[in-house]
Parts: sequence; structure tokens; C-alpha cells
Amino acid sequence: MSRPALPPRASWQPLLELALAEDLGAGDVTSQAVVPADARGRAVVEAREPMVTCGLPVAAAVFSAVDPALRVQTTGSEGLACERDAVLLRVEGSMRGILAAERTALNFLERLCGVATWTRRFARAVEGTGCRIVDTRKTVPGWRVLDKYATAIGGAENHRMGLYDALLIKDNHVAAAGGAVAAWKAARAAAPSHLRIQLEVEDEASAIAAVEAGADWLLLDNMTPEELRRVAGRLRDRALLEASGGVTLANVREVAETGVHRVSIGALTHSAPACDVALEVAETRA
Amino acid sequence: MSRPALPPRASWQPLLELALAEDLGAGDVTSQAVVPADARGRAVVEAREPMVTCGLPVAAAVFSAVDPALRVQTTGSEGLACERDAVLLRVEGSMRGILAAERTALNFLERLCGVATWTRRFARAVEGTGCRIVDTRKTVPGWRVLDKYATAIGGAENHRMGLYDALLIKDNHVAAAGGAVAAWKAARAAAPSHLRIQLEVEDEASAIAAVEAGADWLLLDNMTPEELRRVAGRLRDRALLEASGGVTLANVREVAETGVHRVSIGALTHSAPACDVALEVAETRA
Amino acid sequence: MSRPALPPRASWQPLLELALAEDLGAGDVTSQAVVPADARGRAVVEAREPMVTCGLPVAAAVFSAVDPALRVQTTGSEGLACERDAVLLRVEGSMRGILAAERTALNFLERLCGVATWTRRFARAVEGTGCRIVDTRKTVPGWRVLDKYATAIGGAENHRMGLYDALLIKDNHVAAAGGAVAAWKAARAAAPSHLRIQLEVEDEASAIAAVEAGADWLLLDNMTPEELRRVAGRLRDRALLEASGGVTLANVREVAETGVHRVSIGALTHSAPACDVALEVAETRA
Amino acid sequence: MSRPALPPRASWQPLLELALAEDLGAGDVTSQAVVPADARGRAVVEAREPMVTCGLPVAAAVFSAVDPALRVQTTGSEGLACERDAVLLRVEGSMRGILAAERTALNFLERLCGVATWTRRFARAVEGTGCRIVDTRKTVPGWRVLDKYATAIGGAENHRMGLYDALLIKDNHVAAAGGAVAAWKAARAAAPSHLRIQLEVEDEASAIAAVEAGADWLLLDNMTPEELRRVAGRLRDRALLEASGGVTLANVREVAETGVHRVSIGALTHSAPACDVALEVAETRA
Amino acid sequence: MSRPALPPRASWQPLLELALAEDLGAGDVTSQAVVPADARGRAVVEAREPMVTCGLPVAAAVFSAVDPALRVQTTGSEGLACERDAVLLRVEGSMRGILAAERTALNFLERLCGVATWTRRFARAVEGTGCRIVDTRKTVPGWRVLDKYATAIGGAENHRMGLYDALLIKDNHVAAAGGAVAAWKAARAAAPSHLRIQLEVEDEASAIAAVEAGADWLLLDNMTPEELRRVAGRLRDRALLEASGGVTLANVREVAETGVHRVSIGALTHSAPACDVALEVAETRA
Amino acid sequence: MSRPALPPRASWQPLLELALAEDLGAGDVTSQAVVPADARGRAVVEAREPMVTCGLPVAAAVFSAVDPALRVQTTGSEGLACERDAVLLRVEGSMRGILAAERTALNFLERLCGVATWTRRFARAVEGTGCRIVDTRKTVPGWRVLDKYATAIGGAENHRMGLYDALLIKDNHVAAAGGAVAAWKAARAAAPSHLRIQLEVEDEASAIAAVEAGADWLLLDNMTPEELRRVAGRLRDRALLEASGGVTLANVREVAETGVHRVSIGALTHSAPACDVALEVAETRA
Repeated sequence: MSRPALPPRASWQPLLELALAEDLGAGDVTSQAVVPADARGRAVVEAREPMVTCGLPVAAAVFSAVDPALRVQTTGSEGLACERDAVLLRVEGSMRGILAAERTALNFLERLCGVATWTRRFARAVEGTGCRIVDTRKTVPGWRVLDKYATAIGGAENHRMGLYDALLIKDNHVAAAGGAVAAWKAARAAAPSHLRIQLEVEDEASAIAAVEAGADWLLLDNMTPEELRRVAGRLRDRALLEASGGVTLANVREVAETGVHRVSIGALTHSAPACDVALEVAETRA
Repeated sequence: MSRPALPPRASWQPLLELALAEDLGAGDVTSQAVVPADARGRAVVEAREPMVTCGLPVAAAVFSAVDPALRVQTTGSEGLACERDAVLLRVEGSMRGILAAERTALNFLERLCGVATWTRRFARAVEGTGCRIVDTRKTVPGWRVLDKYATAIGGAENHRMGLYDALLIKDNHVAAAGGAVAAWKAARAAAPSHLRIQLEVEDEASAIAAVEAGADWLLLDNMTPEELRRVAGRLRDRALLEASGGVTLANVREVAETGVHRVSIGALTHSAPACDVALEVAETRA
Repeated sequence: MSRPALPPRASWQPLLELALAEDLGAGDVTSQAVVPADARGRAVVEAREPMVTCGLPVAAAVFSAVDPALRVQTTGSEGLACERDAVLLRVEGSMRGILAAERTALNFLERLCGVATWTRRFARAVEGTGCRIVDTRKTVPGWRVLDKYATAIGGAENHRMGLYDALLIKDNHVAAAGGAVAAWKAARAAAPSHLRIQLEVEDEASAIAAVEAGADWLLLDNMTPEELRRVAGRLRDRALLEASGGVTLANVREVAETGVHRVSIGALTHSAPACDVALEVAETRA
Repeated sequence: MSRPALPPRASWQPLLELALAEDLGAGDVTSQAVVPADARGRAVVEAREPMVTCGLPVAAAVFSAVDPALRVQTTGSEGLACERDAVLLRVEGSMRGILAAERTALNFLERLCGVATWTRRFARAVEGTGCRIVDTRKTVPGWRVLDKYATAIGGAENHRMGLYDALLIKDNHVAAAGGAVAAWKAARAAAPSHLRIQLEVEDEASAIAAVEAGADWLLLDNMTPEELRRVAGRLRDRALLEASGGVTLANVREVAETGVHRVSIGALTHSAPACDVALEVAETRA
Repeated sequence: MSRPALPPRASWQPLLELALAEDLGAGDVTSQAVVPADARGRAVVEAREPMVTCGLPVAAAVFSAVDPALRVQTTGSEGLACERDAVLLRVEGSMRGILAAERTALNFLERLCGVATWTRRFARAVEGTGCRIVDTRKTVPGWRVLDKYATAIGGAENHRMGLYDALLIKDNHVAAAGGAVAAWKAARAAAPSHLRIQLEVEDEASAIAAVEAGADWLLLDNMTPEELRRVAGRLRDRALLEASGGVTLANVREVAETGVHRVSIGALTHSAPACDVALEVAETRA
Repeated sequence: MSRPALPPRASWQPLLELALAEDLGAGDVTSQAVVPADARGRAVVEAREPMVTCGLPVAAAVFSAVDPALRVQTTGSEGLACERDAVLLRVEGSMRGILAAERTALNFLERLCGVATWTRRFARAVEGTGCRIVDTRKTVPGWRVLDKYATAIGGAENHRMGLYDALLIKDNHVAAAGGAVAAWKAARAAAPSHLRIQLEVEDEASAIAAVEAGADWLLLDNMTPEELRRVAGRLRDRALLEASGGVTLANVREVAETGVHRVSIGALTHSAPACDVALEVAETRA
């Protein structure tokens, strides 16, 4: 399988600009006072703990945005499991430029590596079951494409990107339409045919009824492993089955082994701990 | 002490717009297919676990941005420790509008309440010591003002907002200037007098030398509690002392009891777990 | 079937702002010179020929953007087949505001009604065949969501909105992957499961091979009606079949009657003639 | 006469960005799934029918915006009448980049060549009469500068760019001012002297009265060829005369031969059919 | 003559947003620390010296942008010659909102009243001569439409707004074209007929030659009053004559009395001293 | 002391874009009509009077923004006192590009050199007294970072950049808090410790009381030299003293000699006269 593609630059450029503006403001007063304008140097960005690499091109873009004259080079590729002290990126040029970009570049890396590393743990936990981890829309606002890039790098499959690229019929829609099957039929009739439709159900009977009516993609919400096993045994050849609700590292394999095709986990993006990365100046000269 | 003020709308409006654009895209295809255009309803946003409330006005702004005709009302104030099932916000109007805004509003709340709740735990842990928690610049890119608002709501003091509103002389600056004291003196001579200057030191001797030279704000990085106690005993009346490095919930009180005035913790913002909030539709009608 | 929903305001607001900026610039020098600042009036926007109405809320938004104090009221709903002289919109307030917004509001209407009206002709032409018209990505740059809204109002089904919400494997992809079936399999393995995959084929054998391999959505490009009939006869119960290439008002019914489910037509959006609409001032007073 | 100048990049950059964002969104899911990240190739953009070339630098800018590493070369100059299969542009580099930019680049060309080609037909129709074609403000919203560039490339003269760079006194202004001559005098007194003033009149008597009062630029709206001939015979040496209303390819020469200096035609921009252009991949390699 | 119209809001909204962002940043730390969140008050903006009022609606927009709940009322109209202590604007509502907007609102007023007041002095100086003052493009970058609004309010006529709404052939163009008359003829042949053409000449002979060739608008640059008088005596009925170069309050009347129609003065906008305005809080309450 | 650093490009890029847009609009109609598209040339920007250089990199950025192919070179460094006819910048390339950028580049220079030159006069006037000039927030809206850069280049110290990077307690805050000392104590308790607090006082007794209460930074507003001398004699070793109000070139040395550390002057930025700079074309060729 090919490596997930970095989202188009234009899709995260506004976030990069916000991030630099909020940190730089009217300028880096410390470097302006202490570091000579013509001081030059070399620095490396290093992992301070084992992690899955993610976001190196984004970090490189931060350095270049602050100072287009910096020479920036990423090392290794995205998605590698690296060790502590691994070098992620090298940068050379004006010290003021390097120091002004440092924190923003690191903050991007900390989160992207954090999400990828955290996701990789879930992906590893279900290895061999044939079940895949998928992410959700519970991403940090402003970070949708980057958060989902990081989960893909970590080994998850991306669920829909937003409200626009697939239908997901949930309880409130069902209530509005007078039942799950009715909602599904209304959706299939009204939605453009290039869009897939997922239907959320909460028990076995509803799942069966939905598939009988034509549904081919179900979200099995908050079911016990026992229920999931029964539904999967009966429907897994007729519909794509995704389990969700209360999944943790401790129980994800149990859920995966029920026979569902997918397990979706909001915590991949809403609660991933950051990875520790740091910039080390290797050499400075005036 | 007065409650921290919500940052100016203009400072988080671009993030709100990014967040809505990334979720809505060309439109909410599910609601358009299933929910009648004229369906109206009432819903509440509720806490799904105990938490410190934060970001209710931001969530309200999300609903209004999606549909200016929605009637939105926040309940209770920012910074309250609320119980599970507490109602945070009520919204009434077009069901399509409510459902289109739902996920983005919840995502903002999950993170803001998450950071505030997480910070509150640290703040509670040092209560009575006279020491205060401070945040860092290790915020999620694009979220600086909101992340720092949430730490303040949680009970931390804000450290500088960015590179522009205070000087912090770190190892790389010290190296460039040929020593900590030299760097501090250069900074004091060059920086505008309205800006305070913090100097990072890593041992007792450097701390003493810095204060002798005039420094009145130190960052004591990666010192042991024993070292911190010695430095604090000697310098706490002459300079503002901030400890940093490796601080966790488990050891934060030990650090705070050394006599330093501040403890800074990057994890407040780079690794805060999200709080669980949900939207419940209370009534729908055509 | 419910009426297509107007895309979210945020998705066409930048276009509206560009449009007003390019016409207004530093101000309407004619009205400033000739129309008193306090002159008020009432005006109507009227159809100058029979047309399918589309974009009335967009036109209303133009007037309000120029002068928030204008009272604007659209008449009738979107998608109506109206006669010459039908009133589409009423506006009342400052004459300077009305005249400054006039041309931009009309230009939006001319195109949106134009595309909807043009599309309706194709939709009418295939009525009763069970085949539906679909649009393409051959829209005017900057106009994607509005152009596709207009085709939907006209009676077409929307094809994918962009490169991001469905896969369409065309000749260049097939070449890169070493064959249509290989490309389809690679795509199915690599793409997130919520995204549907359409495969372009150019002859009957390829179509059959693709469906045997699992493809359930084909683009039958540049086939003769005879070929289409054979493919449809054989595959229409196993895959969604879309014909494209060289379709005009003159031959669209012939294509639709071959048994394909969809006919896609770029000319809906790249060559729709404008509809004629005009603003009439009903009353002016100082 | 020199060739019309491409408008400043900044004046169409926002439209280019909108256009790419609406097509690319979170990324080209097809190429990401099927085309290797390191595949490279060469492609040409070709005319699929005879046309007047227009917008080649804009199309080149689209490719470069998607992927700055693409090597793009336009062939021939703007405004040429080219044959079917003429090569308009060559591009070489990453296949993913080429395919991601393809549709947007083509959409710009289809419209710009379309407007230029359509305009050229009108310009040819009046050749030798001394009368020139002029455009109007009936452009596609967001496209004012590009649409008017295309009409100029096609051989028309540009009328005012917007409400700000010339005065055009129409019926509603006349009504507000109490008569055409009064309106003209008010305008001349109030408007800055660097701005020219055009006065719309609908009959011979009004035209004569206006010129007697000092008007030197008239819009003769909806007059018959007979009326136009009388007015032109009497006033063409004293004022710039522009005819408008109901002009088509079939009657434009008749109008031009009445002796007026200009004929303005909204259909140049509101109803120009697109030209057919396509991208052909010449060579692909991993 | 009607009062000059305030430029469209959209044309100065970006400047207003920049201005607020640069002053407010992450928030008004003083008011947040000292002024209770619920404190309310009334304040007035007053003239601290005699001045011509200009920009009151802009200042009002600043207050409303900071806090839409503020009640803001301008007093008197634009262009009035007011005395010291005149009240220009009243505002009531949240004290934090009033204080956060104060400096930005005052800075707009100081400049706009400054330019208008300074311009009025020149306009008064030439009263009765029949000659009018005109401005130039020597405005503060970002302020073109507002600076030119202020000169108009002060009594000047606006010269062209930018490079796009009139032609001005200067020495470098003349050099490129091989002579003033040649340049003028080339311009008249190439430029759209709705655009007027001004030709800069530096001596009497050139002025005469230009008018003989058809030029009807001259910029007489750096001529002595004696030369201006000779040119005006000879050409003032055949062309619009504008003098420029080295004009001050001390000599403007002498220039105006030479018989030229216009005198253009860059100092109106590049060197206008600010007017002194201040905000006084009339009443505060919790 | 190192030379003040040019603010980050991102902090003035929006102003540069506004400035170019407002001047260029849909294009430079004069050059398009008169200057051949392929004409090339060399030009210099020169001082037309003695001045302190400031903003050369900004002017260079203007040329490059208009035409990235121009070769631009600044001569000499920022802050130099140059003579009349000194060359500030050289530019070579397309004549159309050079002429399109000319006025905007000059307008930036005129203001930036103007503010720097004007400030230098104040700085020279207090030389030897040990007192420094500081600027204020009375800058031209949109120009905060550039105006303050220019005052620093001129020799002033920058006061706070906006409402966010230091506290300044003024009369209205004092009134809200019930006294100056109470306000100061409230501010010190509530504000983050990295922010300094300045307190405005208007008489000696208040100054003394403030310092006794802990204040270490005072704004002595509208005091006579005699009062300033008494306050400085008593408090200059315990607090940073800044005088303000009614300071001119004529009296600034008298104020500086009272023993205060700083004198703040709004006129540095709100009323600086422009410097005269011009572009001379050295050579043109087709």
C-alpha cells in the first residue's frame, strides 16, 4: 500500500500562517536583542523519545516561511518508527530565522508525531485480525486535514473528511425521518449517487432490518462485543461494519476480533499525547 | 481575582472560520437528504463527565456563524467545575443549522474544557503553597490565544503569549552572546524598557551570578527539587523564580514546595485529554 | 424529493466579495454625482424571458452586503419555471445602495438562472426514460458550488464536487497503473472505504472485465448508442452506468434510452447561455 | 496596436486560489490511490477545435500553484487564431501535480478562449466599418478583469471596468435628477474631472439635446438602425456614439454601418460558449 | 454640490481590521486587569482644537467592530468646521469595549480630520479664483480611498484614484514613446475611450504642441507663475490645465491666479499634520 | 547597540498588498498604452533632500511583488543620515514593472524616511542628557509595526506595541478602580507577571504614593518642567520615569534635562512630514 499523501499545501497554509502570526507577532524580541543580525548556524530537530515520524514537510515549510533563505532538509520518510535521538530535520542559515521558527515547527511536529504514534499503537493492537482502525471528525478545529493525515500515517483508515463527502445517518436524522430504514431510503433517493451512506444502528434487529432494506455500510454504536459478534457473523458479507463507542487500547483487540471490518476511535485525534521533539543548535558563527 | 477575559473575537475568528470550512465544505449532505429544510428543534449541549467549563461563548459563536437565526444561550459561567450531565448550552431553531454546527461546536468545547480541566488539576495540586502554575508556548498551532485562555480559566497564570511580549534568554541565546550574564546585559541594553526579560539558568551558581548582575526573573530549567530549594532559599526575594522541566501531576507539589514562585508545564496544552461533551436534541418539529 | 439546498453561505461568500469589489472599487461615481445621498426608492428584479428561477437568495445577499439597511424580499421559490415579467425579488431603501448592487446581483442571477434553465431542458428531454442527467467538473473557476447548485435546481444530479469526494479513474490513471482492472483494484485497496470509485472504460469488453473484477460504477466514454445499449443490457443491474461524450440536446434522449442510468454533460455549466433579468425602479423619493 | 496586457497577477490571484481550493479540497484521492508519488511525466494542453488563444499564462500559473516544481511552457502568444490540435502549453514533472491541476487549468482556458473566440467573431463581423465592439459589465461575478481581458484579446475595446472608472447615466439616474440634461450637468459639476461621463438616451431628440448641452459620449439604447443612422449622421463628429440593445452576430454589421463609433454587447461575456481544450499525457515514467 | 460620499465599507474594511488587530492583539491587558467585565459607561470623542470634521462614520465603525453591543452616535456631519471642544461622537456600553476601541478610533479621526483640515486651508486660499485644488497619488500606503475621501471633504477635487482610472503620461512614458505628442497619440489610439488622458509638459512650447495635436488635459509641471500665466492665457479654453510642483500655502494663490484650472499638491496627503481629538469618559458604573 | 530589526515580513505583508491593490487595480493603463511590453530599463530611487534612510527593504519588496523578475538592490543600510541625491535603491528589468511599482514604493519610503528623520531630530535634541525619546500608539492605522520600526531607526525607544504587551493604567482605569494605587495593586495582582505595568500620574504626590506602593514605571503626564524636576530628583532611582504631554522640538531638551528617563511624543508618528524621494530612469531599451 502506498504511503498516505501529504494534503495539498493550500489546505494547511492558512493554519501555518495563523501559527506563525500568533507566535511571531511584531517580532522575536529576544533574538533581536541578543543574536547578531548576521549570525549564522546549523541546527537539527531530534526526537526525544521513540515515535512515528509525521509532519516533517510541514515543519520544513515553517522554517522556509519564516526565512526563505534557510536551507532545510528532512531526513527519513513519514511514518517511520524512529528511536530517541533520531534526527528528523536539519536546518542551516540565519540564527534569527532558525530561532524564530523553532517553536512553531516543533509544535506542529509534536502534535503530528503524537497523533501518528498514538494511532500506530491502536493499529498494532489489531494486527492480524483483518479489522482496521478508522478515525472520526473529533479533530482539533482547524486541523482536520493534518489530523487525518497523521492518523493515516499512523496506520488508520480515514473516515469521511467532513459533512460533505459521505452521509452518516445518526439518531437525530433517524428521529427526523421516522425510523432508520425510512431515513436510509430517503437518503439514498435524495443524495447524489457518488456518495456512500452509512447508517448508525444500536442493536442487532435494526442492523438486520437495515441491510435487508439495502444498507451496505453500518455504524454499530455502543454494542457489546457479544452483540458485535452476532451482527458480524450474520452481516459481514453483506455490509461494511464499523464498531464505535468506548474503545480503548485495552479493549480494541477484543472489539476487532468480533469480526467487524472497522473500529472507529475519536481519541486518536481528540486526546493524543504530544511527542517530545527538540531543536539543537549544532554550530553558530557570526 | 477577576475571571480571565475571553480573547477578542477577531483573534480567534480565523480559526473558527477554518474549522467550519473544513467540516462543512460544500454542505452537510446528510441533513440535506434526510432533514426537511423547515424542520425546527431544540437541543442542549451537555457534559458527559465532570469538567471545568471553558469555551461556551466560542461554541455559541459556532452555532451563530452557521445559522445567524439560531437562538443560542450559554448556561453558567466559564471556569465552573460542573458535574456529568450538566447543561452547558441551549440552542433552538433550524434542525439543519443545529446539526451542521454540532461537531465543530463540540470539538471546540472538548479541547477548551479539556485544557481547563487538566490545568485545574495541576492548580489544585499546588494550592496553599503560594506557587502558581504557568503555561508555555507549547500550544497547538493556531490555538495560542484559546489554549492560553483555557489554562487561565483552569487556574494557571499565562506566560508570554509569543516571541514578542517578553524576552526569554535560553541556551542558544546564551551561546550566541558568550555567557548568561553577558546575554542578559545585552538584552537589557537593547530591548525596549517595557519588556521584561527572563533568563534561563541550569544551576545554582549561574542563578546567583545572574541575580547579582541584575536579573529579576529566572527560569530554573531541569533542576532537582533539592537544587530548586537552595536557589529559592537564596534568591526568592530578589527575583521571580520559575521552575520547569519534567513536571507531572505526581511531582508538581514537590516542586512547588521548594519555594519557587512559578512552575511552568508544557503538557497543560500539548497533551491535555479532551473532555466528553455531547449534543442532545430535545424536540424536533416540522 | 426535497429541493436542493443552497450551499453554505461561507462557501460562496468569497465569490460574492470578489464580485462586489470588482464592480464597486472605490465607489459608484455615477450615483454619488447624480443621486442624492438620502434618495430612497423601491425596485423589482424581473425575468425578461421565461426561465427556471435560481439564485434568488444569492441576489438578496448581494443587496444586503452592499447596504445592510436595504429591505430585500425574494418572491417564489428556487427552481420554478416562471414566465417573462415574473417578479423575482423586491428591494426597498437607499437608491444609492440599490443602484450600487444592481449589476452584481443581476450578474449572479443571469448565470444561475441560465445554468438552471439550460439544465432543465436536458432533464425534460430524458423524462420518462429513468435515466438522469449529471453534471461534471467543467464549471467556471470559482463557481463550483454555485454552478452545481444550479444544475441540481435544474433537475440534474450532482456528480462529485471535486477531486476529493469520489474517485474517477481515467485514461491517464489507467496508463499509470497498467490497465483498468489493475487500476481499479489498486484504488479499492488504497482509498478510504467511504469513497466510491468510478472507472472510465471505452468499450464493451473493458466494461465487462471491470464489473467482473468488482467495479460497480462505470463511466462509458464516447461510446455509440449501439454500444451503450449492449453494455447496459448486460451490466445495468450490476453497476451504475454513466454515459458521457458528445451529448447534445439533440441526441440526449437517444442516449438516455439505451438503458444507462446517467448521462453526464459538461455543457450544462461550461456553455450555458445567460438568462435575461432586469431591475426596474418602481418608485423614487428624496 | 499593442496586444492587451494580462491584468496584474494580484487582480486574479484570489480567483485562482478559489478555483484550486474548490477542486482540490483535501486532496486528489484518485491520484493518491493510483498514481505513485514519484511518477513523472510530460503532457500537453491542446485545442480540440479552432479558437482564439487566451489565458495561457493563467493556465500556466495554475500548474505552478499546484506544484511549483512543474516545468511549464506556453507556446505561441495570446490572441492567435489557432487550429484544432494546436499545442497551447507543455508541462513536465510530477504526474500527481499535473493531474491535480489539469481540470482547473482547462476550465480557465475553456472560458478565456471561449470569450476571446466569441468576441473575435463579432469583431470580424464589423471589420472595415470603422466601428468597434465594446464589452459591458455583464461579466461572470468574480471574473471582471479576466473576462474583459478576453474580450480585448478577442478584438473588442473595453468599456469601463466597474462603477468607479467612468460615469454612465442611465434611466434611473435621469429619473432621480429630473431629466437627462439636468443629470448630465449635475454629473459634470460633481464628478472629478478625470472621469468621462456617458449619457444614455433613447431617441434622437434626446441625443441632440444632450450634445447641445455639452455631452460628448452617448449610449444610444435600443434604437433602430434607421434612428441610429440619423443620430450618427448628425452627431458623430461631436460625440462618441455607442449603440446597444439586442445586438447579435446576425445584425451587428447592420448596426455598425449606421455610423456609430461603438456597439456594446453583453453577450460577449454572459453567454460565450466554452472552447474545447484537453490535456494529453505524452509520456509517463516512475 | 453634494457632499463627497464615504467610500464603500468594503474598500476600507481591511484597513480597519488591520488597525484593530495591531492594537488589540491577544487582548487589552490593562482593562482586563483593572476594569470589571460588567462595568458600563458613557464617553464622548471631542475635538481638542478647531478642525474640519472627517471620518466620524469610520470611528463609529471601529467602536462597533470591537463590540457590536456599543451604542454609537456621531454628531454633526462630515466636513463641518468645528471649534475646540466640539463633540464628534458619543458612545455608551461596556467600558472594556470603549477603552479597547479608543486609540484606534482616535487614530483614524486624527488623520482624517488632519487631512481634511489641512486641505481646507489650501481650498480657502484659492477661493474666488475659479481654480480648484486637486490631490495626488502621494497617499499613505493602504489609505488611498480614505485619504482621497478626506481631501474631498476638505474641498479638493480628487485626481485619479490609481493607475487604472485615467492615464497620466509622464517623462518616462514620453521617453519610451519618443516625444510627448507621439506618446499622447499612442495612448489615445491604444487606451479604451472611456479613459481620459493627461499629458505632462514642462514648457510652453510643448503645451501648445500637445493641444494642437489633440490633448485636452495637461499637467504643467514645475513652471513659474509667469509661464503658467502665458500657457493659461493661450490654452485655458482648449484644455484642462493643472499646475503642479513646489506649491505651498504661501504661494498657492499666486499659482491659482495664473488662470490654470487646477493645482495639484502632494502634501495634502503625505504631510498633513494630525488633528488633536480625545475621548472623555462621562460616566462609569458597575 | 544593534540596529533595530525590520519587523517580520508577515507583519507588513497585508499592508503591502493593500497598497499595491489600491494603486494598480485592474492595471496600469498608461504603461499598457504607451510602454512596449518588452521594454526594459534601469532606474534609481534617490533622496531629494537630506534624510535618515528607512524602509529600503520594504521598497524593494514592493518592486518584487509587482514583478518578481525585477532585479532590485538597496544601497547602504537603514538609519543612515544621507545627503540630497543619495541613491537609495537600484532596480532593473521590465519598464512596465518598474513604473507600476514606482509610486507605491516611493510612498512607503516617503513615510518611513519621514518618520525616521523626524524622530532623529528629537533624538539629537536630547543627546547627552541620558534621557531617551519613546514613541506612542498614535500611529497611522495599519502602520503600527512599520511606524514603530521607523521611530526605532530614528533613534527612539519603542513603547508598547499595542494594548497587549504591557499595561498602562490611565485616568479612566484609575477612575474605574477607585484611585491610582488601588488600580496599580489590582493590576499587579491580576496581570501575568511577565507584563510590566506603567501608571499615569499627574502630580508629585501621586507619583510618590505610587512608588511607595510598589510602582516602578510612571507616566508623568502634563507636568511642568519644574514638577518633573522635583519628581525625578526624588524618584528616578526607584522607578522608570516617562514624561509626556505637549512636547515639541522647541522644549524637548528642557524636559529631558529634568532628570526623567524617557519623554514620549505622539507627534513622532501622527504628524511627521514626508521626505522627498524620487525615481529616475537611467536607461530604457526595447
